[in-house]
Amino acid sequence: MKFTILGTGSATPITERRPSAALLDLGNESILLDCGEGTQFQMLKYKVRFSRIKYILITHLHGDHFFGLIALLNTLNNTGRTEPLVLIGPHGLQDIIGVQLRYSLSFLNYTIDYRTTNPGAFEEVFSNEKISISTIPLKHRIPCTGYLISEKPALRKILAERLPPDFPLPYFKMLKEGLDVEHEGKIYANAEYTLAPASPKKVAYCSDTIFDLGIASYVYQADLLYHESTFTKELSARAQMTFHSTAEQAASIAKAAQVKQLIIGHFSSRYKDTSAFLTEAREIFQNTYLSEEGKTFRV
Amino acid sequence: MKFTILGTGSATPITERRPSAALLDLGNESILLDCGEGTQFQMLKYKVRFSRIKYILITHLHGDHFFGLIALLNTLNNTGRTEPLVLIGPHGLQDIIGVQLRYSLSFLNYTIDYRTTNPGAFEEVFSNEKISISTIPLKHRIPCTGYLISEKPALRKILAERLPPDFPLPYFKMLKEGLDVEHEGKIYANAEYTLAPASPKKVAYCSDTIFDLGIASYVYQADLLYHESTFTKELSARAQMTFHSTAEQAASIAKAAQVKQLIIGHFSSRYKDTSAFLTEAREIFQNTYLSEEGKTFRV
Repeated sequence: MKFTILGTGSATPITERRPSAALLDLGNESILLDCGEGTQFQMLKYKVRFSRIKYILITHLHGDHFFGLIALLNTLNNTGRTEPLVLIGPHGLQDIIGVQLRYSLSFLNYTIDYRTTNPGAFEEVFSNEKISISTIPLKHRIPCTGYLISEKPALRKILAERLPPDFPLPYFKMLKEGLDVEHEGKIYANAEYTLAPASPKKVAYCSDTIFDLGIASYVYQADLLYHESTFTKELSARAQMTFHSTAEQAASIAKAAQVKQLIIGHFSSRYKDTSAFLTEAREIFQNTYLSEEGKTFRV
Repeated sequence: MKFTILGTGSATPITERRPSAALLDLGNESILLDCGEGTQFQMLKYKVRFSRIKYILITHLHGDHFFGLIALLNTLNNTGRTEPLVLIGPHGLQDIIGVQLRYSLSFLNYTIDYRTTNPGAFEEVFSNEKISISTIPLKHRIPCTGYLISEKPALRKILAERLPPDFPLPYFKMLKEGLDVEHEGKIYANAEYTLAPASPKKVAYCSDTIFDLGIASYVYQADLLYHESTFTKELSARAQMTFHSTAEQAASIAKAAQVKQLIIGHFSSRYKDTSAFLTEAREIFQNTYLSEEGKTFRV
Protein backbone atom coordinates (compact mmCIF):
# COMPACT_ATOMS: atom_id res chain seq x y z
CA MET A 1 0.00 0.00 0.00
CA LYS A 2 1.04 3.57 -0.61
CA PHE A 3 -0.32 6.64 1.16
CA THR A 4 -0.13 9.96 -0.67
CA ILE A 5 -0.91 13.34 0.83
CA LEU A 6 -2.97 15.64 -1.42
CA GLY A 7 -3.83 18.42 1.05
CA THR A 8 -2.10 19.64 4.20
CA GLY A 9 -4.19 22.66 5.22
CA SER A 10 -7.16 23.28 7.47
CA ALA A 11 -10.25 25.47 7.18
CA THR A 12 -8.67 28.83 6.33
CA PRO A 13 -7.39 28.77 2.74
CA ILE A 14 -3.84 29.89 2.03
CA THR A 15 -2.02 29.75 -1.27
CA GLU A 16 0.63 27.34 0.03
CA ARG A 17 -1.75 24.58 1.17
CA ARG A 18 -4.76 22.75 -0.12
CA PRO A 19 -7.47 21.38 2.18
CA SER A 20 -7.65 17.79 3.40
CA ALA A 21 -7.35 14.86 1.02
CA ALA A 22 -5.18 11.75 0.94
CA LEU A 23 -4.97 8.72 -1.29
CA LEU A 24 -4.42 5.16 -0.17
CA ASP A 25 -3.24 3.12 -3.14
CA LEU A 26 -4.07 -0.57 -2.71
CA GLY A 27 -2.33 -1.68 -5.88
CA ASN A 28 -4.92 -1.88 -8.64
CA GLU A 29 -7.47 0.26 -6.84
CA SER A 30 -7.40 3.14 -4.43
CA ILE A 31 -9.20 4.87 -1.59
CA LEU A 32 -9.60 8.63 -1.39
CA LEU A 33 -9.75 9.90 2.18
CA ASP A 34 -11.53 13.25 2.41
CA CYS A 35 -11.91 15.51 -0.60
CA GLY A 36 -11.43 19.20 0.13
CA GLU A 37 -11.95 21.87 -2.52
CA GLY A 38 -9.62 21.39 -5.48
CA THR A 39 -8.76 17.76 -4.76
CA GLN A 40 -9.26 16.82 -8.41
CA PHE A 41 -6.66 19.42 -9.37
CA GLN A 42 -4.26 18.00 -6.79
CA MET A 43 -4.91 14.56 -8.27
CA LEU A 44 -4.06 15.86 -11.73
CA LYS A 45 -0.95 17.59 -10.43
CA TYR A 46 0.35 14.48 -8.68
CA LYS A 47 -0.76 12.11 -11.46
CA VAL A 48 -3.29 10.13 -9.45
CA ARG A 49 -5.27 7.84 -11.72
CA PHE A 50 -8.91 8.87 -11.41
CA SER A 51 -10.22 5.55 -12.77
CA ARG A 52 -8.56 3.57 -9.99
CA ILE A 53 -10.51 5.23 -7.22
CA LYS A 54 -12.99 2.71 -5.96
CA TYR A 55 -13.76 4.15 -2.54
CA ILE A 56 -14.19 7.67 -1.22
CA LEU A 57 -14.30 8.10 2.55
CA ILE A 58 -15.45 11.41 4.03
CA THR A 59 -14.78 12.03 7.72
CA HIS A 60 -17.22 14.90 8.35
CA LEU A 61 -19.12 17.70 6.69
CA HIS A 62 -16.85 20.65 7.34
CA GLY A 63 -16.09 22.15 3.98
CA ASP A 64 -12.33 21.68 4.04
CA HIS A 65 -12.99 17.92 4.04
CA PHE A 66 -15.61 17.52 1.30
CA PHE A 67 -16.19 20.63 -0.84
CA GLY A 68 -14.22 19.04 -3.69
CA LEU A 69 -16.34 15.90 -3.76
CA ILE A 70 -19.19 16.98 -6.04
CA ALA A 71 -16.70 18.25 -8.63
CA LEU A 72 -14.75 15.00 -8.54
CA LEU A 73 -17.92 12.91 -8.88
CA ASN A 74 -18.83 14.97 -11.96
CA THR A 75 -15.39 14.56 -13.46
CA LEU A 76 -15.45 10.79 -12.90
CA ASN A 77 -18.68 10.78 -14.86
CA ASN A 78 -17.39 13.03 -17.62
CA THR A 79 -14.35 10.81 -18.08
CA GLY A 80 -16.51 7.80 -18.81
CA ARG A 81 -16.72 5.97 -15.52
CA THR A 82 -19.30 3.21 -15.36
CA GLU A 83 -17.85 1.25 -12.45
CA PRO A 84 -19.69 1.63 -9.14
CA LEU A 85 -18.12 3.81 -6.48
CA VAL A 86 -18.32 3.14 -2.75
CA LEU A 87 -18.92 6.42 -0.95
CA ILE A 88 -18.76 6.36 2.83
CA GLY A 89 -19.55 9.42 4.91
CA PRO A 90 -21.87 11.07 7.41
CA HIS A 91 -25.60 11.46 7.21
CA GLY A 92 -26.38 14.35 4.85
CA LEU A 93 -23.74 13.64 2.24
CA GLN A 94 -26.21 11.92 -0.08
CA ASP A 95 -28.61 14.90 0.16
CA ILE A 96 -25.83 17.37 -0.60
CA ILE A 97 -24.78 15.46 -3.70
CA GLY A 98 -28.34 14.76 -4.76
CA VAL A 99 -29.50 18.38 -4.71
CA GLN A 100 -26.53 19.50 -6.81
CA LEU A 101 -26.96 16.79 -9.41
CA ARG A 102 -30.68 17.51 -9.57
CA TYR A 103 -30.39 21.24 -10.23
CA SER A 104 -27.64 20.76 -12.82
CA LEU A 105 -29.79 18.09 -14.55
CA SER A 106 -26.83 15.74 -14.25
CA PHE A 107 -27.11 11.98 -14.20
CA LEU A 108 -24.14 9.86 -13.26
CA ASN A 109 -23.41 6.89 -15.50
CA TYR A 110 -22.07 4.96 -12.53
CA THR A 111 -23.84 3.98 -9.35
CA ILE A 112 -22.80 5.24 -5.95
CA ASP A 113 -22.96 2.71 -3.14
CA TYR A 114 -23.60 5.10 -0.23
CA ARG A 115 -22.72 3.94 3.27
CA THR A 116 -23.65 6.23 6.13
CA THR A 117 -21.33 6.34 9.10
CA ASN A 118 -22.46 6.02 12.69
CA PRO A 119 -20.35 8.71 14.37
CA GLY A 120 -20.13 7.16 17.82
CA ALA A 121 -19.22 3.68 16.70
CA PHE A 122 -16.12 1.66 15.90
CA GLU A 123 -17.77 -0.56 13.32
CA GLU A 124 -17.12 -2.10 9.95
CA VAL A 125 -18.77 -0.14 7.14
CA PHE A 126 -17.36 -2.07 4.20
CA SER A 127 -15.80 -5.44 3.64
CA ASN A 128 -14.80 -7.59 0.70
CA GLU A 129 -12.27 -10.37 0.12
CA LYS A 130 -9.37 -7.90 0.18
CA ILE A 131 -10.10 -5.18 2.70
CA SER A 132 -12.22 -4.13 5.60
CA ILE A 133 -13.07 -0.49 6.37
CA SER A 134 -14.18 0.52 9.86
CA THR A 135 -15.11 3.86 11.35
CA ILE A 136 -13.11 5.30 14.23
CA PRO A 137 -15.17 7.46 16.60
CA LEU A 138 -13.71 10.96 16.73
CA LYS A 139 -14.79 13.92 18.83
CA HIS A 140 -15.21 17.09 16.82
CA ARG A 141 -17.67 19.97 16.68
CA ILE A 142 -19.93 18.05 14.32
CA PRO A 143 -20.38 14.29 13.79
CA CYS A 144 -17.03 12.92 12.62
CA THR A 145 -15.35 9.56 12.15
CA GLY A 146 -11.87 8.49 11.22
CA TYR A 147 -11.31 5.34 9.19
CA LEU A 148 -9.32 2.18 9.71
CA ILE A 149 -8.53 0.29 6.52
CA SER A 150 -7.35 -3.27 7.14
CA GLU A 151 -6.14 -5.71 4.56
CA LYS A 152 -7.61 -9.18 4.83
CA PRO A 153 -4.99 -11.90 5.47
CA ALA A 154 -3.71 -13.23 2.16
CA LEU A 155 -3.48 -16.96 1.35
CA ARG A 156 -0.25 -18.84 2.04
CA LYS A 157 2.19 -19.17 -0.84
CA ILE A 158 2.72 -22.69 -2.15
CA LEU A 159 6.24 -23.99 -2.72
CA ALA A 160 5.16 -25.84 -5.85
CA GLU A 161 8.60 -27.27 -6.59
CA ARG A 162 8.35 -29.41 -3.46
CA LEU A 163 5.09 -31.04 -4.56
CA PRO A 164 4.75 -34.01 -6.93
CA PRO A 165 3.77 -33.08 -10.51
CA ASP A 166 0.44 -34.94 -10.24
CA PHE A 167 -0.55 -33.24 -6.99
CA PRO A 168 -4.37 -32.71 -7.23
CA LEU A 169 -5.54 -29.18 -7.84
CA PRO A 170 -8.15 -29.06 -5.00
CA TYR A 171 -5.37 -29.75 -2.51
CA PHE A 172 -3.57 -26.57 -3.59
CA LYS A 173 -6.47 -24.54 -2.24
CA MET A 174 -6.34 -26.41 1.06
CA LEU A 175 -2.61 -25.78 1.41
CA LYS A 176 -3.12 -22.11 0.59
CA GLU A 177 -5.65 -21.92 3.38
CA GLY A 178 -3.14 -23.35 5.86
CA LEU A 179 -4.40 -26.91 6.05
CA ASP A 180 -2.35 -30.11 5.97
CA VAL A 181 -3.21 -32.49 3.13
CA GLU A 182 -3.09 -36.29 2.83
CA HIS A 183 -2.38 -37.58 -0.70
CA GLU A 184 -1.66 -41.19 -1.69
CA GLY A 185 -0.89 -42.09 1.92
CA LYS A 186 1.49 -39.24 2.54
CA ILE A 187 0.84 -36.27 4.86
CA TYR A 188 1.84 -32.95 3.35
CA ALA A 189 2.39 -30.76 6.45
CA ASN A 190 1.40 -27.22 5.56
CA ALA A 191 4.48 -25.57 7.07
CA GLU A 192 6.78 -27.59 4.80
CA TYR A 193 4.96 -26.82 1.56
CA THR A 194 3.88 -23.22 1.98
CA LEU A 195 5.23 -19.85 3.03
CA ALA A 196 3.36 -17.36 5.17
CA PRO A 197 2.01 -14.39 3.19
CA ALA A 198 3.03 -10.83 3.95
CA SER A 199 1.26 -9.78 7.11
CA PRO A 200 -1.88 -7.76 6.40
CA LYS A 201 -1.47 -4.01 6.72
CA LYS A 202 -3.55 -1.52 8.64
CA VAL A 203 -3.82 2.19 7.88
CA ALA A 204 -5.72 4.65 10.07
CA TYR A 205 -6.88 8.14 9.16
CA CYS A 206 -8.01 10.44 11.98
CA SER A 207 -9.09 13.97 11.07
CA ASP A 208 -10.54 16.07 12.79
CA THR A 209 -10.59 15.43 16.52
CA ILE A 210 -9.95 16.77 19.96
CA PHE A 211 -7.18 14.85 21.79
CA ASP A 212 -8.57 11.48 22.82
CA LEU A 213 -6.18 8.74 23.91
CA GLY A 214 -9.05 6.30 23.42
CA ILE A 215 -8.26 6.52 19.69
CA ALA A 216 -5.11 4.51 20.41
CA SER A 217 -7.13 1.35 21.01
CA TYR A 218 -8.79 1.61 17.59
CA VAL A 219 -5.56 2.18 15.70
CA TYR A 220 -3.47 -0.24 17.76
CA GLN A 221 -0.31 -1.34 15.93
CA ALA A 222 -1.40 0.24 12.67
CA ASP A 223 1.28 0.29 10.00
CA LEU A 224 0.51 3.94 9.34
CA LEU A 225 -1.49 6.43 11.35
CA TYR A 226 -2.48 9.77 9.88
CA HIS A 227 -3.58 12.00 12.73
CA GLU A 228 -4.47 15.68 12.49
CA SER A 229 -2.30 18.17 14.30
CA THR A 230 -3.78 21.57 13.67
CA PHE A 231 -1.70 23.31 16.33
CA THR A 232 1.58 23.05 18.23
CA LYS A 233 1.44 22.58 21.98
CA GLU A 234 1.66 26.30 22.81
CA LEU A 235 -1.88 26.51 21.44
CA SER A 236 -3.25 23.44 23.20
CA ALA A 237 -6.00 25.52 24.82
CA ARG A 238 -7.09 26.66 21.38
CA ALA A 239 -6.86 23.08 20.11
CA GLN A 240 -9.19 21.96 22.88
CA MET A 241 -11.61 24.81 22.31
CA THR A 242 -11.88 24.12 18.58
CA PHE A 243 -11.89 20.32 18.99
CA HIS A 244 -8.53 19.87 17.32
CA SER A 245 -5.22 18.29 18.38
CA THR A 246 -1.61 19.37 18.79
CA ALA A 247 1.44 17.61 17.34
CA GLU A 248 2.35 16.36 20.80
CA GLN A 249 -1.10 14.91 21.30
CA ALA A 250 -1.05 13.16 17.92
CA ALA A 251 2.34 11.69 18.83
CA SER A 252 1.03 10.51 22.22
CA ILE A 253 -1.65 8.53 20.45
CA ALA A 254 0.89 7.06 18.01
CA LYS A 255 3.07 6.03 20.94
CA ALA A 256 0.25 4.54 23.00
CA ALA A 257 -1.00 2.66 19.95
CA GLN A 258 2.50 1.44 19.02
CA VAL A 259 1.95 2.30 15.37
CA LYS A 260 4.79 1.89 12.88
CA GLN A 261 4.69 5.45 11.54
CA LEU A 262 2.77 8.63 12.20
CA ILE A 263 1.91 11.26 9.59
CA ILE A 264 0.69 14.60 10.92
CA GLY A 265 -1.16 17.25 8.92
CA HIS A 266 -4.15 19.63 8.81
CA PHE A 267 -1.90 22.50 9.84
CA SER A 268 -3.48 25.78 10.88
CA SER A 269 -2.92 28.60 8.38
CA ARG A 270 -1.09 30.59 11.09
CA TYR A 271 1.98 28.35 10.72
CA LYS A 272 4.03 29.23 7.66
CA ASP A 273 6.81 26.86 8.72
CA THR A 274 5.79 23.42 9.99
CA SER A 275 9.14 22.25 11.35
CA ALA A 276 8.02 22.94 14.95
CA PHE A 277 5.29 20.32 14.52
CA LEU A 278 7.87 17.70 13.63
CA THR A 279 10.24 18.56 16.47
CA GLU A 280 7.41 18.52 18.98
CA ALA A 281 5.96 15.20 17.78
CA ARG A 282 9.32 13.43 17.52
CA GLU A 283 10.06 14.15 21.17
CA ILE A 284 7.21 11.77 21.91
CA PHE A 285 7.20 9.49 18.87
CA GLN A 286 10.33 9.32 16.76
CA ASN A 287 8.87 7.84 13.60
CA THR A 288 6.74 10.88 12.77
CA TYR A 289 6.61 12.58 9.36
CA LEU A 290 5.07 15.82 8.17
CA SER A 291 2.35 15.87 5.55
CA GLU A 292 3.65 17.35 2.32
CA GLU A 293 1.43 17.68 -0.73
CA GLY A 294 2.36 15.05 -3.29
CA LYS A 295 4.50 13.07 -0.86
CA THR A 296 3.99 9.30 -0.78
CA PHE A 297 4.64 7.07 2.20
CA ARG A 298 5.13 3.33 1.69
CA VAL A 299 3.17 1.16 4.08
CA MET B 1 -13.79 49.54 -13.68
CA LYS B 2 -11.35 46.67 -13.99
CA PHE B 3 -12.14 43.18 -15.18
CA THR B 4 -9.88 40.36 -13.96
CA ILE B 5 -9.96 36.79 -15.21
CA LEU B 6 -9.69 34.13 -12.51
CA GLY B 7 -10.51 31.01 -14.52
CA THR B 8 -10.16 30.20 -18.21
CA GLY B 9 -11.19 26.55 -18.40
CA SER B 10 -14.38 24.65 -19.07
CA ALA B 11 -15.91 21.51 -17.55
CA THR B 12 -12.99 19.08 -17.87
CA PRO B 13 -10.32 19.96 -15.32
CA ILE B 14 -6.71 20.30 -16.49
CA THR B 15 -3.76 21.45 -14.44
CA GLU B 16 -3.15 24.53 -16.58
CA ARG B 17 -6.62 26.08 -16.21
CA ARG B 18 -9.10 26.76 -13.47
CA PRO B 19 -12.86 26.82 -14.08
CA SER B 20 -14.90 29.95 -14.73
CA ALA B 21 -14.63 33.00 -12.51
CA ALA B 22 -14.01 36.69 -13.16
CA LEU B 23 -13.92 39.77 -11.01
CA LEU B 24 -15.33 43.17 -11.92
CA ASP B 25 -13.76 45.79 -9.68
CA LEU B 26 -16.00 48.85 -9.33
CA GLY B 27 -13.51 50.82 -7.25
CA ASN B 28 -14.37 50.33 -3.61
CA GLU B 29 -16.47 47.23 -4.16
CA SER B 30 -16.48 44.36 -6.60
CA ILE B 31 -18.61 41.79 -8.38
CA LEU B 32 -17.62 38.15 -8.73
CA LEU B 33 -18.94 36.58 -11.91
CA ASP B 34 -19.24 32.79 -11.59
CA CYS B 35 -17.28 30.88 -8.99
CA GLY B 36 -15.86 27.56 -10.20
CA GLU B 37 -14.04 25.17 -7.90
CA GLY B 38 -10.97 26.77 -6.36
CA THR B 39 -11.98 30.37 -7.05
CA GLN B 40 -11.01 31.41 -3.52
CA PHE B 41 -7.50 30.07 -4.14
CA GLN B 42 -7.32 32.02 -7.39
CA MET B 43 -8.41 35.11 -5.47
CA LEU B 44 -5.62 34.55 -2.96
CA LYS B 45 -3.12 33.97 -5.74
CA TYR B 46 -4.05 37.15 -7.59
CA LYS B 47 -4.51 39.21 -4.41
CA VAL B 48 -8.21 39.90 -4.79
CA ARG B 49 -9.57 41.51 -1.63
CA PHE B 50 -12.26 39.19 -0.27
CA SER B 51 -13.91 41.89 1.83
CA ARG B 52 -14.63 44.08 -1.20
CA ILE B 53 -16.86 41.54 -2.88
CA LYS B 54 -20.38 42.81 -2.58
CA TYR B 55 -22.08 40.86 -5.35
CA ILE B 56 -21.74 37.32 -6.64
CA LEU B 57 -23.44 36.50 -9.93
CA ILE B 58 -23.83 32.88 -10.99
CA THR B 59 -24.79 32.19 -14.59
CA HIS B 60 -25.97 28.58 -14.27
CA LEU B 61 -25.66 25.47 -12.17
CA HIS B 62 -23.06 23.52 -14.12
CA GLY B 63 -20.32 22.74 -11.65
CA ASP B 64 -17.51 24.56 -13.44
CA HIS B 65 -19.44 27.78 -12.77
CA PHE B 66 -20.39 27.45 -9.11
CA PHE B 67 -18.69 24.57 -7.25
CA GLY B 68 -16.35 27.04 -5.52
CA LEU B 69 -19.18 29.18 -4.16
CA ILE B 70 -19.98 27.35 -0.93
CA ALA B 71 -16.31 27.35 0.04
CA LEU B 72 -15.99 31.07 -0.65
CA LEU B 73 -19.14 31.85 1.35
CA ASN B 74 -17.66 29.92 4.28
CA THR B 75 -14.36 31.72 4.01
CA LEU B 76 -16.06 35.12 3.90
CA ASN B 77 -17.73 34.12 7.16
CA ASN B 78 -14.55 32.80 8.76
CA THR B 79 -12.72 36.01 7.95
CA GLY B 80 -15.24 38.07 9.89
CA ARG B 81 -17.65 39.36 7.28
CA THR B 82 -20.81 40.92 8.63
CA GLU B 83 -21.76 43.00 5.57
CA PRO B 84 -24.65 41.65 3.50
CA LEU B 85 -23.84 39.94 0.21
CA VAL B 86 -25.99 40.13 -2.91
CA LEU B 87 -26.11 36.69 -4.51
CA ILE B 88 -27.78 36.43 -7.89
CA GLY B 89 -28.26 33.12 -9.63
CA PRO B 90 -30.67 30.48 -10.90
CA HIS B 91 -33.42 28.75 -8.99
CA GLY B 92 -31.85 26.05 -6.82
CA LEU B 93 -28.78 27.93 -5.71
CA GLN B 94 -30.28 28.83 -2.35
CA ASP B 95 -31.22 25.17 -1.72
CA ILE B 96 -27.72 23.99 -2.60
CA ILE B 97 -26.12 26.44 -0.19
CA GLY B 98 -28.73 25.87 2.50
CA VAL B 99 -28.33 22.10 2.61
CA GLN B 100 -24.56 22.36 2.95
CA LEU B 101 -24.69 24.96 5.72
CA ARG B 102 -27.31 22.92 7.54
CA TYR B 103 -25.37 19.65 7.62
CA SER B 104 -22.14 21.37 8.64
CA LEU B 105 -24.04 23.20 11.43
CA SER B 106 -22.68 26.44 9.99
CA PHE B 107 -24.34 29.80 10.43
CA LEU B 108 -23.19 32.78 8.42
CA ASN B 109 -22.66 36.00 10.32
CA TYR B 110 -23.73 38.00 7.28
CA THR B 111 -26.99 37.95 5.40
CA ILE B 112 -27.31 36.85 1.82
CA ASP B 113 -29.70 38.84 -0.33
CA TYR B 114 -30.69 36.12 -2.81
CA ARG B 115 -32.06 37.15 -6.18
CA THR B 116 -33.30 34.41 -8.47
CA THR B 117 -32.79 34.88 -12.18
CA ASN B 118 -35.49 34.39 -14.77
CA PRO B 119 -33.59 32.53 -17.49
CA GLY B 120 -35.63 33.70 -20.47
CA ALA B 121 -35.66 37.37 -19.59
CA PHE B 122 -33.57 40.46 -20.17
CA GLU B 123 -34.49 42.16 -16.92
CA GLU B 124 -32.96 44.16 -14.10
CA VAL B 125 -32.23 42.01 -11.06
CA PHE B 126 -30.45 44.62 -8.97
CA SER B 127 -30.18 48.38 -8.92
CA ASN B 128 -28.79 51.03 -6.60
CA GLU B 129 -27.52 54.58 -7.05
CA LYS B 130 -24.32 53.37 -8.69
CA ILE B 131 -25.07 50.32 -10.80
CA SER B 132 -27.75 48.26 -12.42
CA ILE B 133 -27.45 44.52 -13.04
CA SER B 134 -29.59 42.83 -15.67
CA THR B 135 -29.80 39.25 -16.85
CA ILE B 136 -29.01 38.38 -20.45
CA PRO B 137 -30.98 35.37 -21.77
CA LEU B 138 -28.56 32.67 -22.90
CA LYS B 139 -29.31 29.34 -24.52
CA HIS B 140 -27.52 26.47 -22.83
CA ARG B 141 -28.35 22.90 -21.83
CA ILE B 142 -29.78 24.07 -18.52
CA PRO B 143 -31.28 27.44 -17.48
CA CYS B 144 -28.57 30.06 -17.91
CA THR B 145 -28.25 33.82 -17.97
CA GLY B 146 -25.42 36.18 -18.69
CA TYR B 147 -25.19 39.52 -16.89
CA LEU B 148 -25.03 43.12 -18.00
CA ILE B 149 -23.59 45.48 -15.40
CA SER B 150 -24.27 49.14 -16.19
CA GLU B 151 -23.00 52.11 -14.27
CA LYS B 152 -25.61 54.75 -13.52
CA PRO B 153 -24.87 58.13 -15.14
CA ALA B 154 -22.81 60.27 -12.79
CA LEU B 155 -23.69 63.92 -12.04
CA ARG B 156 -22.19 66.75 -14.10
CA LYS B 157 -19.02 68.36 -12.73
CA ILE B 158 -19.35 72.01 -11.67
CA LEU B 159 -16.79 74.59 -12.80
CA ALA B 160 -16.92 76.38 -9.43
CA GLU B 161 -14.37 79.03 -10.39
CA ARG B 162 -16.85 80.45 -12.92
CA LEU B 163 -19.57 80.94 -10.32
CA PRO B 164 -19.91 83.93 -7.94
CA PRO B 165 -18.70 83.27 -4.35
CA ASP B 166 -22.21 83.71 -2.92
CA PHE B 167 -23.85 81.29 -5.37
CA PRO B 168 -26.61 79.45 -3.37
CA LEU B 169 -25.88 75.84 -2.45
CA PRO B 170 -29.22 74.41 -3.67
CA TYR B 171 -28.40 75.65 -7.18
CA PHE B 172 -25.23 73.55 -7.25
CA LYS B 173 -27.38 70.41 -7.11
CA MET B 174 -29.55 71.70 -9.98
CA LEU B 175 -26.47 72.41 -12.08
CA LYS B 176 -25.06 68.95 -11.30
CA GLU B 177 -28.31 67.47 -12.55
CA GLY B 178 -27.98 69.34 -15.83
CA LEU B 179 -30.47 72.16 -15.24
CA ASP B 180 -30.04 75.87 -15.99
CA VAL B 181 -30.35 78.17 -12.99
CA GLU B 182 -31.58 81.76 -12.61
CA HIS B 183 -29.89 83.73 -9.82
CA GLU B 184 -30.22 87.47 -9.15
CA GLY B 185 -31.62 88.07 -12.62
CA LYS B 186 -28.91 86.16 -14.43
CA ILE B 187 -29.36 82.87 -16.29
CA TYR B 188 -26.59 80.37 -15.59
CA ALA B 189 -26.71 78.13 -18.65
CA ASN B 190 -25.72 74.61 -17.60
CA ALA B 191 -23.33 74.00 -20.46
CA GLU B 192 -21.22 77.00 -19.48
CA TYR B 193 -20.89 76.11 -15.81
CA THR B 194 -20.54 72.33 -15.83
CA LEU B 195 -18.66 69.56 -17.54
CA ALA B 196 -20.17 66.28 -18.63
CA PRO B 197 -19.20 63.33 -16.38
CA ALA B 198 -17.34 60.32 -17.72
CA SER B 199 -19.83 58.30 -19.72
CA PRO B 200 -21.22 55.37 -17.74
CA LYS B 201 -19.63 52.03 -18.52
CA LYS B 202 -21.29 48.76 -19.44
CA VAL B 203 -19.76 45.32 -18.98
CA ALA B 204 -21.40 42.13 -20.23
CA TYR B 205 -20.60 38.56 -19.21
CA CYS B 206 -21.97 35.75 -21.36
CA SER B 207 -21.11 32.18 -20.41
CA ASP B 208 -22.29 29.54 -21.42
CA THR B 209 -24.31 29.74 -24.62
CA ILE B 210 -24.90 28.38 -28.05
CA PHE B 211 -24.29 30.99 -30.79
CA ASP B 212 -27.13 33.50 -30.72
CA LEU B 213 -26.77 36.80 -32.55
CA GLY B 214 -29.72 38.04 -30.54
CA ILE B 215 -27.27 38.50 -27.68
CA ALA B 216 -25.82 41.47 -29.59
CA SER B 217 -28.90 43.56 -28.87
CA TYR B 218 -28.53 43.04 -25.11
CA VAL B 219 -24.84 43.92 -25.02
CA TYR B 220 -25.04 46.71 -27.59
CA GLN B 221 -22.06 49.08 -27.38
CA ALA B 222 -20.82 47.55 -24.15
CA ASP B 223 -17.38 48.74 -23.09
CA LEU B 224 -16.34 45.16 -22.47
CA LEU B 225 -17.95 41.92 -23.52
CA TYR B 226 -16.81 38.62 -22.09
CA HIS B 227 -18.19 35.86 -24.30
CA GLU B 228 -17.43 32.19 -23.99
CA SER B 229 -15.62 30.49 -26.84
CA THR B 230 -15.25 26.87 -25.91
CA PHE B 231 -14.19 25.77 -29.39
CA THR B 232 -12.56 27.01 -32.57
CA LYS B 233 -14.60 27.02 -35.74
CA GLU B 234 -13.44 23.58 -36.91
CA LEU B 235 -15.54 22.20 -34.08
CA SER B 236 -18.60 24.36 -34.68
CA ALA B 237 -20.79 21.26 -34.98
CA ARG B 238 -19.62 20.15 -31.57
CA ALA B 239 -20.18 23.67 -30.23
CA GLN B 240 -23.74 23.56 -31.45
CA MET B 241 -24.35 20.07 -30.08
CA THR B 242 -23.08 21.02 -26.61
CA PHE B 243 -24.71 24.49 -26.63
CA HIS B 244 -21.40 26.31 -26.70
CA SER B 245 -19.83 28.88 -29.05
CA THR B 246 -16.74 29.17 -31.20
CA ALA B 247 -14.27 32.08 -31.21
CA GLU B 248 -15.64 33.23 -34.57
CA GLN B 249 -19.17 33.24 -33.23
CA ALA B 250 -18.18 35.22 -30.12
CA ALA B 251 -16.46 37.74 -32.38
CA SER B 252 -19.52 38.01 -34.62
CA ILE B 253 -21.58 39.03 -31.62
CA ALA B 254 -18.96 41.57 -30.55
CA LYS B 255 -18.97 43.03 -34.06
CA ALA B 256 -22.74 43.16 -34.39
CA ALA B 257 -23.01 44.73 -30.94
CA GLN B 258 -20.22 47.25 -31.68
CA VAL B 259 -18.63 46.62 -28.29
CA LYS B 260 -15.33 48.29 -27.42
CA GLN B 261 -13.46 45.10 -26.51
CA LEU B 262 -14.12 41.38 -26.48
CA ILE B 263 -12.60 38.90 -24.03
CA ILE B 264 -12.97 35.23 -24.94
CA GLY B 265 -12.52 32.30 -22.57
CA HIS B 266 -13.98 29.00 -21.29
CA PHE B 267 -11.60 27.09 -23.53
CA SER B 268 -12.12 23.36 -24.01
CA SER B 269 -9.45 21.23 -22.35
CA ARG B 270 -8.53 19.80 -25.77
CA TYR B 271 -6.73 23.03 -26.69
CA LYS B 272 -3.32 23.28 -25.06
CA ASP B 273 -2.50 26.38 -27.07
CA THR B 274 -5.18 29.05 -27.36
CA SER B 275 -3.58 31.25 -30.03
CA ALA B 276 -5.90 29.85 -32.72
CA PHE B 277 -8.87 31.29 -30.82
CA LEU B 278 -7.36 34.75 -31.01
CA THR B 279 -6.49 34.55 -34.69
CA GLU B 280 -9.95 33.30 -35.55
CA ALA B 281 -11.76 35.94 -33.51
CA ARG B 282 -9.61 38.84 -34.71
CA GLU B 283 -10.47 38.08 -38.31
CA ILE B 284 -13.99 39.15 -37.40
CA PHE B 285 -13.41 41.56 -34.52
CA GLN B 286 -9.96 43.08 -34.12
CA ASN B 287 -10.20 44.23 -30.53
CA THR B 288 -10.37 40.72 -29.08
CA TYR B 289 -8.25 39.44 -26.19
CA LEU B 290 -7.72 36.01 -24.73
CA SER B 291 -8.63 35.21 -21.16
CA GLU B 292 -5.52 34.63 -19.07
CA GLU B 293 -5.75 33.82 -15.39
CA GLY B 294 -4.76 36.84 -13.32
CA LYS B 295 -4.94 39.22 -16.28
CA THR B 296 -6.78 42.51 -15.74
CA PHE B 297 -8.50 44.52 -18.47
CA ARG B 298 -9.26 48.20 -17.90
CA VAL B 299 -12.77 49.23 -18.88
